Amino acid sequence: MSESIVRALKCRECGQEYPIEPTHVCEFCFGPLEVAYDYHKLEGKFTRELIESRPQTMWRYKELLPIDGEPTVGAQNGFTPLVRAKRLEKVLGVKELYIKNDSVCYPTLSFKDRVVSVALSKAVEFGFTTVACASTGNLAGSVAANAAAAGLESYVFIPHDLEQGKVLGAGIFGTNIIGIKGKYDDVNRLCSEVAGKYGWAFVNVNVRPFYAEGSKSLAYEVMEQLGWKAPKHVVVPMASGSLCTKVDKAIKEFIKLGLIEDNGTAVYGAQATGCSPIAKSVKDGTDMIHPVHADTIAKSLAIGNPADGYYANRVINESGGWAEDISDEEVVAAMKLLAETEGIFAETAGGVTLGCAMKMIESGKLPRDESIVLCITGNGLKTQEAIVDAITKPRIINASLKEFDLLAEADGVADA
Amino acid sequence: MSESIVRALKCRECGQEYPIEPTHVCEFCFGPLEVAYDYHKLEGKFTRELIESRPQTMWRYKELLPIDGEPTVGAQNGFTPLVRAKRLEKVLGVKELYIKNDSVCYPTLSFKDRVVSVALSKAVEFGFTTVACASTGNLAGSVAANAAAAGLESYVFIPHDLEQGKVLGAGIFGTNIIGIKGKYDDVNRLCSEVAGKYGWAFVNVNVRPFYAEGSKSLAYEVMEQLGWKAPKHVVVPMASGSLCTKVDKAIKEFIKLGLIEDNGTAVYGAQATGCSPIAKSVKDGTDMIHPVHADTIAKSLAIGNPADGYYANRVINESGGWAEDISDEEVVAAMKLLAETEGIFAETAGGVTLGCAMKMIESGKLPRDESIVLCITGNGLKTQEAIVDAITKPRIINASLKEFDLLAEADGVADA
Repeated sequence: MSESIVRALKCRECGQEYPIEPTHVCEFCFGPLEVAYDYHKLEGKFTRELIESRPQTMWRYKELLPIDGEPTVGAQNGFTPLVRAKRLEKVLGVKELYIKNDSVCYPTLSFKDRVVSVALSKAVEFGFTTVACASTGNLAGSVAANAAAAGLESYVFIPHDLEQGKVLGAGIFGTNIIGIKGKYDDVNRLCSEVAGKYGWAFVNVNVRPFYAEGSKSLAYEVMEQLGWKAPKHVVVPMASGSLCTKVDKAIKEFIKLGLIEDNGTAVYGAQATGCSPIAKSVKDGTDMIHPVHADTIAKSLAIGNPADGYYANRVINESGGWAEDISDEEVVAAMKLLAETEGIFAETAGGVTLGCAMKMIESGKLPRDESIVLCITGNGLKTQEAIVDAITKPRIINASLKEFDLLAEADGVADA
Repeated sequence: MSESIVRALKCRECGQEYPIEPTHVCEFCFGPLEVAYDYHKLEGKFTRELIESRPQTMWRYKELLPIDGEPTVGAQNGFTPLVRAKRLEKVLGVKELYIKNDSVCYPTLSFKDRVVSVALSKAVEFGFTTVACASTGNLAGSVAANAAAAGLESYVFIPHDLEQGKVLGAGIFGTNIIGIKGKYDDVNRLCSEVAGKYGWAFVNVNVRPFYAEGSKSLAYEVMEQLGWKAPKHVVVPMASGSLCTKVDKAIKEFIKLGLIEDNGTAVYGAQATGCSPIAKSVKDGTDMIHPVHADTIAKSLAIGNPADGYYANRVINESGGWAEDISDEEVVAAMKLLAETEGIFAETAGGVTLGCAMKMIESGKLPRDESIVLCITGNGLKTQEAIVDAITKPRIINASLKEFDLLAEADGVADA
C-alpha cells in the first residue's frame, strides 16, 4: 500500500486536530471527530486507471480509507452492482434511474459490511482483540461475521425485539449477542458506557470516525460505475444520518482529486414517518433535530436520536436536496414494487428509500429528467416479518394436470 | 459478441445431434440432450487476457455459454468470491481449503442465478414470453426475480412445505407461485406435463440443456480465481446431480482450450442421508440410482429421483472422487462451523457440503495436503427454520451498565 494520507482526527465543530487513536469526541467542545486527509499527497498518483486496475472490492479506493496497511478484515467486501432500473423508470415516469444494490453487499448483505471492514481493520491496527457494536440489526450481523472470519472476539448489542433474520443473521456467527429491553437509543446509551469501561473496539462508538469513512466507498463505486460521473440526485436512507454525510464527502473528494467533474449533486434523505426526526427538521426548515420515540417496521432506520442528524440536515440543505418520510404501508408497497419491476428484494429500509423517492418525484422535489441514484442498503430476507402478510400466498394444488388446468384457466392462460 | 460456437444439441447416450431448439430428450433413445460446441473455433481467440479484460460477471466466459447474442437476462449475474478458508483449514487439519461462495450470488443468493440467466436469455431468443420451473426453492426465487427484472411472465412450482424464506423469496417478485402437495419429484412430474401442454419455457424441462450449461460458470470462476489452475479436489452438493457433471465439463473445456493445465481434478458429491440416492450408488459401487422418498432438512437437495444421478456417479468415479452423506444434525453443526470460522452463513446445502467434506477428510478419501474447493451454493437466510433452535439466543438485559457488568463477569471478561 502506498503511504497513508490520513493526517489527523479533526473536530467537525472547532477544527481541533488529534492524533490517530480510538477516540471520537473533541476534548474542547465535545464535537464529533472526523478523519482528515492530506489530499495533495495523492496528486497525479490516484488515477482512474490505477483504480480500474484493482480487484472489484471497496478497497480499490484504499487511499481514501483510513487504515495504514492492507485491510486485515473484509478484504473482499463491497463493490455491489449499480443497476439501470429501466422498468422502474417507466412506472415512475423518470428518465434515468439507478439502483445501487447493497442488498447483495459482501459478505452479510448490507452496506454495513463497508463500515465494518474499515472499523475492524483499524481495530486490529490499534491492537484490539475484542470488537463490539450497538446495532439495529445489520451492523450486528456484519460485526459478527467479519469478526468471526478474522478470528476476533465480538459482542453485539441489539434491541430485544428485532426481526428473526437479524438476530439469527448475527447469532449464527458465534458472537456474544445481548438483547436490550428498550429502543436502539437505549442500546446506544448503554454501549457508550460499556465502551468507556471495557477495552473493546466499539465500531460505532470509540472507533466511529474510522468506521463511518467506510460508507464513502458506496459513493465511490457509484461514480465509477456511472462512467466517472456523479449523479445529479442521490437518495439515501437515514438512521443516524451518517450515510448522507459520507456520500457527500465522497463526491467532494473525487472532485477535489480531479476524478470527476462537479455535477452539482443534490443529496436527499429518506425516513419512515414513525421515525423521521431528520426528515422533519428538513421539512420544517430548521436544523434542530428533535428526538422521537421510534415506531416503524423499518427497524434498521429506527434511531430516534440520530447522532449525525444535524450534519445530514446540513448536507441536504447545502446540496439543494430535500427529505421525505412515508408510512409503513407505503414502505411495504415500495418493497413490492422494487421486487416486481427490478427483481431486487430489499429490506424495509429499501422500501423507505424508493417510497420517499416516489413521493419527491410526485411533488417535483426530484426532477424527472435528470439522473437519480437510489441507495438500497439491506436485504429483504432479513426483514421477512414486514411483508409476509402482504405477499400473495402460493396456490396449493395436488400434483395433477387437471387441477393445474383449472387454475390456468382461471388465470386466462391459453394452451400452446 | 463473437460468433457462437454452439454446434448442436447432442444426445448424451447415442450421440444423435439436433438443431438448437427448446427440447431436451433424444427422439431415438430418450437420452438427455446436451449442448455441443465447436471448440476449435475459439483457438487462439479465447485467452486469459481477453477474459480478464471483461466485467466481473459470469458472462466473461460467454463464448462457452449457449446463447447467440448478448445476455438479455441477468447480465450482471455471477462472479462470487473464492475465499481462502485459513481458519477452517486449522479446524479441519488441511493445508489448502477454499470456499466458492455462491451464498452471495447475484441477484438471489444462490448458484441458480447462473443457470437461470442462461435459460431465460435463451428463452427470450426462442421467443418465449412466459417462463416457469419446478423448484426446491432457490430456483423459484431466481426465476421469479430474473423474470421480473426482464419483464417476463413467470410460473414457479414448489413443494407446498418449503421454508418461509424460499416461498417469500419467490413470492415477493410477483410471480405466479404454485404449491404442490407432494415432494419435489411430484412437482417435477407435473411440470413435465405442464411443459408439454402450455407454450412456456420451463427452465429445467424443455430448455434444460441450455439452463444446465450456466452451472459451468461457477467452475470457470474458481479456476480463474485460483490463478488459472484447477483445484485437485472439488466438493459439490448434489440434488439432481447436474452441478457435478457441469463442474467436470467446465474443467475439461478449460484444459481443451489451453487455459489451464490438467491437474487431475477429482469431483466429490455431497448429500444429506435423508436423500442420498447418488451418494449411496457411489458407496455401493454401482451406477444404478435407486429413487428414495426424501426426508431431510436440506430441502434444496431433496430430489429423490435425480435426473442426472447416473452421470454424476460416472463423473465421480471417472475423476477418482467419492461421495458421502451426513445426518441432519451434522448438517446443522457444519453450518455453524462455517459461520463461526469463516463468517459465511450458508443454507442447509452448504452444511451438507462442508459436513460431507469433513467426513471424507476423516476417512482419508480427501487428502489433507492438496487443494480442496467446497462449493457453497445458497444462503442461510432462506433456511432459518433449520437452525433457529440450534443458535444461542440473545441474553436479554435492561439498558443498565450494572446488568451488563454481571453478564460480563459471568463471561470472565476483564475491565479495561
